[in-house]
This record gives sequence, C-alpha cells and structure tokens, in this order.
Amino acid sequence: MKQISGGICAAKGFKANGIHCGIRKNRTKKDLALIVSDIPAAAAAVYTTNLVKGAPLTVTKAHIADGIAQAVICNSGNANTCNANGIEIAEQMSDLLAQALNISPKDIVVASTGVIGQPLDITPIAAGIPALVAGLSTDGCDAAAEGIMTTDTVKKEIAIEFEIGGKTCHIGGIAKGSGMIHPNMATMLVFITTDVAIAPAMLQKALSGDIAGTFNMVSVDGDTSTNDMVTVLANGMAGNAPIETEGEDFATFMKALNTVTVNLCRMIAGDGEGATKLLECIVSGADDLTVARTVAKSVICSSLLKAAMFGADANWGRVLCAIGYSGAPVNVDRVDVSFRSPKGEITVCRNGAGVAFSEEKAKEILLERNIEILISIGDGNVTATAWGCDLTYDYVKINGDYRT
Amino acid sequence: MKQISGGICAAKGFKANGIHCGIRKNRTKKDLALIVSDIPAAAAAVYTTNLVKGAPLTVTKAHIADGIAQAVICNSGNANTCNANGIEIAEQMSDLLAQALNISPKDIVVASTGVIGQPLDITPIAAGIPALVAGLSTDGCDAAAEGIMTTDTVKKEIAIEFEIGGKTCHIGGIAKGSGMIHPNMATMLVFITTDVAIAPAMLQKALSGDIAGTFNMVSVDGDTSTNDMVTVLANGMAGNAPIETEGEDFATFMKALNTVTVNLCRMIAGDGEGATKLLECIVSGADDLTVARTVAKSVICSSLLKAAMFGADANWGRVLCAIGYSGAPVNVDRVDVSFRSPKGEITVCRNGAGVAFSEEKAKEILLERNIEILISIGDGNVTATAWGCDLTYDYVKINGDYRT
Repeated sequence: MKQISGGICAAKGFKANGIHCGIRKNRTKKDLALIVSDIPAAAAAVYTTNLVKGAPLTVTKAHIADGIAQAVICNSGNANTCNANGIEIAEQMSDLLAQALNISPKDIVVASTGVIGQPLDITPIAAGIPALVAGLSTDGCDAAAEGIMTTDTVKKEIAIEFEIGGKTCHIGGIAKGSGMIHPNMATMLVFITTDVAIAPAMLQKALSGDIAGTFNMVSVDGDTSTNDMVTVLANGMAGNAPIETEGEDFATFMKALNTVTVNLCRMIAGDGEGATKLLECIVSGADDLTVARTVAKSVICSSLLKAAMFGADANWGRVLCAIGYSGAPVNVDRVDVSFRSPKGEITVCRNGAGVAFSEEKAKEILLERNIEILISIGDGNVTATAWGCDLTYDYVKINGDYRT
Repeated sequence: MKQISGGICAAKGFKANGIHCGIRKNRTKKDLALIVSDIPAAAAAVYTTNLVKGAPLTVTKAHIADGIAQAVICNSGNANTCNANGIEIAEQMSDLLAQALNISPKDIVVASTGVIGQPLDITPIAAGIPALVAGLSTDGCDAAAEGIMTTDTVKKEIAIEFEIGGKTCHIGGIAKGSGMIHPNMATMLVFITTDVAIAPAMLQKALSGDIAGTFNMVSVDGDTSTNDMVTVLANGMAGNAPIETEGEDFATFMKALNTVTVNLCRMIAGDGEGATKLLECIVSGADDLTVARTVAKSVICSSLLKAAMFGADANWGRVLCAIGYSGAPVNVDRVDVSFRSPKGEITVCRNGAGVAFSEEKAKEILLERNIEILISIGDGNVTATAWGCDLTYDYVKINGDYRT
C-alpha cells in the first residue's frame, strides 16, 4: 500500500476542477469545486447528526438513495443552511451541473460550506459552471481541494495505490476543515474517490464502519457542524472482481480506505483553526473499544489541555481531569500518562499520581509540532486514537469575527 | 428579600479570615481561608462527578456524613489531588485546625484548589493556622474570599436578608472560579453560610434541589473540575422554628438560597478565565425542563459562539448549530433567536431562518459586558438559564502556561 500523488484524480476515470466564481469577494480564493467520474459510480455517504442539517445534505441524501452518483459539486463561502430557499438552491446547482455534464441531476452530490444563515445566490454558480466543467482534468485535484477550503490554511489531499485480486487500485480523498469540527456519526466535508469495483451496499458498509474510529475521533472545537458529510464514489474502473460480500478483498479495501481517512484526520486536526500543533491521544490497555474512544476523545477536547499544549506546558493534571469527567468507567488509580514527540518520550504520571520528571525535557518534547499523548488505562488490549489540536490566540482571532 | 453586605459573615454567629501562609510564592496573594460558626451547624454538600476526585472531597464527605460541621478550611495554590498522600494531608489540615479551635476534626470541611498532581506541603499551613484563627472576625469575609481565589480577578461574595416566621434570617456565600468550570452535579468551590435553623436532611434537599438549575448550568470551558464542591453551614442562630419538613418556610429558604446561588453563578461566569463578557442564555417555550436546560447549556458551551461574542459578532448560525447538536429533541424550524443587552434587543432568527437585521445595532448591543442570548423553541412554558462567558485571547494566555 503506497502513497502516491494525484489525490481524488489518482483513481482511474476521475477528473476534477476548482474555480473562483464569485461567492467570495476575494478573487484569489477559489469557491467552487467539481469532481466527475467518467462513468456512473457506486456512492456512499455519511452525514452530520446535528438536527440542524444543511439543505445540500437533504438533497444529496435523496439523490444517492439509489447508491449511484457520477459527480460532486461543492461551494465554499456559504453553507446554504438555515435560510428560506436552501433546498431550491441546492436543486438548482444540481440541475445546472447536470445540463452541463449531460447526466441526470439525480446522480449529483451537492455540498456547501461557509457561514450559516444567509441566502446562497445561484447567480455566480450558474455563471461559473461552464468554466468549471470546461476546466475538468486529471490534474484538477489541487484546484478542487482549494475550492472547498474555508479557514483552512493548507489543502488536504491524499491518494494511495494498492492491489485487489492482482488489479492495481486507487483511493484518493480531499477534505476541508478547519473549525466547527467535532464530527458525530459523520464529519466535516470529505470527498473520496476510488476505482475499485464494489457494490453500493458494501461501499456504505465500509464507510460507515470506518468513520467511528477515524473522523468521529477528530475534534477541533467541540462544535458538530450542520453540514458535515463524507462521500465516496467508486467507479469500478480498476477492473477488479466486484466486491459484493465481506472477505479478503473487502478487508483490503477497508484497510486502504482507513489509510486514506486516517491521513485526512491528521490533516484536518493539524490544520484546526489557529492550530500550531497536531495532538494525537492514544489510549491503550482498555477492555472495551467504547471506553478507549471515550477517554481519547474527552482528552483531545479539553480546552484546558489544548491551551497547555499551545504553551508547551506538561500540565498532565488536565489529562487526568479529562479522563475523570469523560463518563467512561476508568480506574483512575491505574492510569499512566506520557508525552511523546520526535524529540523523545517522557512519563509524567504513573498509577494516577505524578512522578518526578525533567521540566526541561518535557518542554523540549512539547515544543514540537506533532505531539502524542499516551494514556494507559489498565491491562486490556484495546486501543483507540483521537486527533485534535492546540487552542491558540489565532483560534479566538479567527472566530471573533468570522463573518466579516 | 434584600441584598446586604458581609458575605459569609452576614449570618449570625459566623466569623472568617484569610491569610498568606506560603503555599503560593507571591506574598501579596492570600492562600488560606477559614470560616467558623460559633456553634455546630447543620451541614450539606454536593461534590464533583469527576471520577478523579480531590483528596479533600473524600475527607470532607466522611466528616460531614453526620450532617454537622462547624468550620471550613480551604487553601488555594494546590488542589491536593492526584498525588501520593492527599488524604493524609487533608486529615492533617483538619487535625491542626481542630486543635486550634478546640473542636472535633470531624466537624471540619476541608477544601483545596489549584494545580493538580503535586504534593501539598503541610508546613506553611501548620505554621499559618495560629494567625488564621487569631484573626477570625465578623469582618473577615473579604479576606476569606481572597484566600480561595486562583485565576479569579475579582472576589465573589453575596449576602441577603429575609424573614422566616417573623425572624430575620441571612444567607451569604463566597465562590472561586474561574477555569476548569463545567460543573456536573456539583461545582467549583462555593461556601455558603446561613443562620436559618434547618434540619441537615432538609438543608441537603434544598442544596441538591437548587444546583441543577444554578451551578450545574454554568460553564466557562467545558472542563469539569476534580475539586468542585459546594457546602452550606446552617447554624440556626436566627431563631426561627427549625425547618424539618417542606412547606412555606422551606420554600422561603429555597428562594433565598437560590438568590444567593444565582448571584454567585453570574459572578463565576462573568469572571471566567480571560472573560470580557458575561453570557446568559435564556431558553423559553420548552415543554420539558431537561430540554430547556440541555439547549441552554449547549449554546453557552460553544467555543465558536463564545469567540463570536468576544468579537461582538452576531453570528447566530452558531446558536442554531449548538441547538442542533445538543441532543435535545427540538423542532429547529420553530426556533427564534434574539440578542439583548442594556443597549437593546435584536431578533436575528425566526422559525429557524435568518431575518434581516441592522448589523450596526447588533454590534452596539453585543459590545456591552452583559449579553443575553434569548432562544424560543416552541409553545411550551418551561424556561431555563445557563451562564457562561466569551472565549478570549486571555483564556489562551492564562492556560498556556498555568503552572509557572
């Protein structure tokens, strides 16, 4: 399983593009993205559990109810949510794109991201679609990844190559963060493409099974977005024997999918709004996966710990505190805590109590960009990982005046 | 029911004091507080639900199991939690104070607040107790309120006067915030005194009944502390007929207690770490109290909304978002949202969708220090309030390097 370039265009038969159409005032910022498969593809998606659901999610859900889609259109700059005519606008986006691509509007995934509660004007989108379609190319991943960015500071894309039944297969994905990130049963916007041949039901099973341990374990700020969505299009052009049941091929696909999603999780968390550090909390020694995940997520969500990590302060009491209020049944007298980074590893707590450690060494470890918080909670053999980021002045700055 | 001065010394028969004993390096910051009743008092307490519980809580729970206490000792600068000998040190604090006051150590409430995970040295406490006791006075509330402060920027004290059965009664309280504030079944440190005569069981009933709508509805940062505790001492010196059952007198006492606790909630939230604004989220129109409270607390906890309030940005989409992920069954198409402050009130969302409003007027309203977020969720008549604060640069600064 090797990492390759190309992102969502790495899989055979996928083209993409991204343009500035005018939803945003800043002309240098792309605001409309498109992904198209040469042929209809199996489609699967998971959506936010927020009761306030973006209009595009409702439209997408109806469109891919038959398990088939061929294109994804996504704008940034406006979430098309909590306004009077969101559904109508999302349907218009589909209809206009369907005409331009000469496909059915029912085969289109629609997504929007940006400010909530303002009407989305169809005019710039309608005007932009011809250029968006004309510019489709197998080199278009960068442009599409830029088109879905909001407060993201870096593009998030990944692709891998692997084999199923002797056939070379690919999965690629793009994602946008970077605030309102606390997925619950689904996540931020992520679009994944693959040329693997797989039945829609198995594709949905793979995706739904994967997210519990990947996107649902990411948190930037505890706010579960209204527009979270992950979609996968699988067009079968790798030529493998179609995956119709569980088995070796399905397991290989799951592993490949997980490689892509874990990489995207790390990118999303590491580029959380204002973040200077990627935090990975790895809980081991659990008897139960729910316990391990609950503890890892509680720690990664603690504002106090996130601020301490920003300050490279080994304030492990906040780790214990977050374990204690997580709601998971943990024997706190058996908890060990260490911090690890490329500069080394240091144990700061054993059996629920502090141990002497070098503050100087701890500082050196915590000044790195990628920090692992290692928590052992007992003798079990279940582990879980959660991803997050530090809490910084820039998070406050970005969100103190997001709309202007 | 009128507000008076004197705090915890407003009730008859209570004295207090606070000194710098040397737990903190800064000699101008008091770090040890004492409250004493002239006679043994009915005692009630509620504690954090964090599984990691401070040693002082364990000791206090045992001491007041009989419903009686006479004194409260509390140090700041060290939480005496997650260390090897916390219980032993908390017992030593009790024993030393008991000797100095010539009372039983079993009648002492012990509390600690500050950094978690470091051993608490008994030496400065032992050395300080004689001066602490010698300085007890009915003017000592300010000193005690200062003695329990950590990152608090202002003292938090309140007292009220009221009548029960023709007798003048008093309740007073002090509190410390101001980070790791997200109480759950109990709260930060709050010490309340009253001269009302009330049976211990009724006192506990009053306290437990009150906190669900007061301290448990406060959040500064979502982190439920390990050392949260609220205690009430009631010494009966007002001379009212002892409250042994529910009825008019109990209702009057509950109302008086609630006046004190709501005031302390507002002080704690308004002085949250780094806060520039007190936020009060008032949810009305619910059919069910749990729904109203869940929605109010979810909104007050949203990092995104808190940052928007810091920036005086009327980004009400974040209010809808937080309602949607709260877990409460709300019909989001019926939600109205307004912002209110001394500068006026402005409606920004009706029936789940944005309405046109003056950004200029909204800014003027949100630049005030006290902001109300008014949410109507339907036709019911149940309301709930939650208290919080904005998320600011200073929160990050304070918590980026708390230990040094």
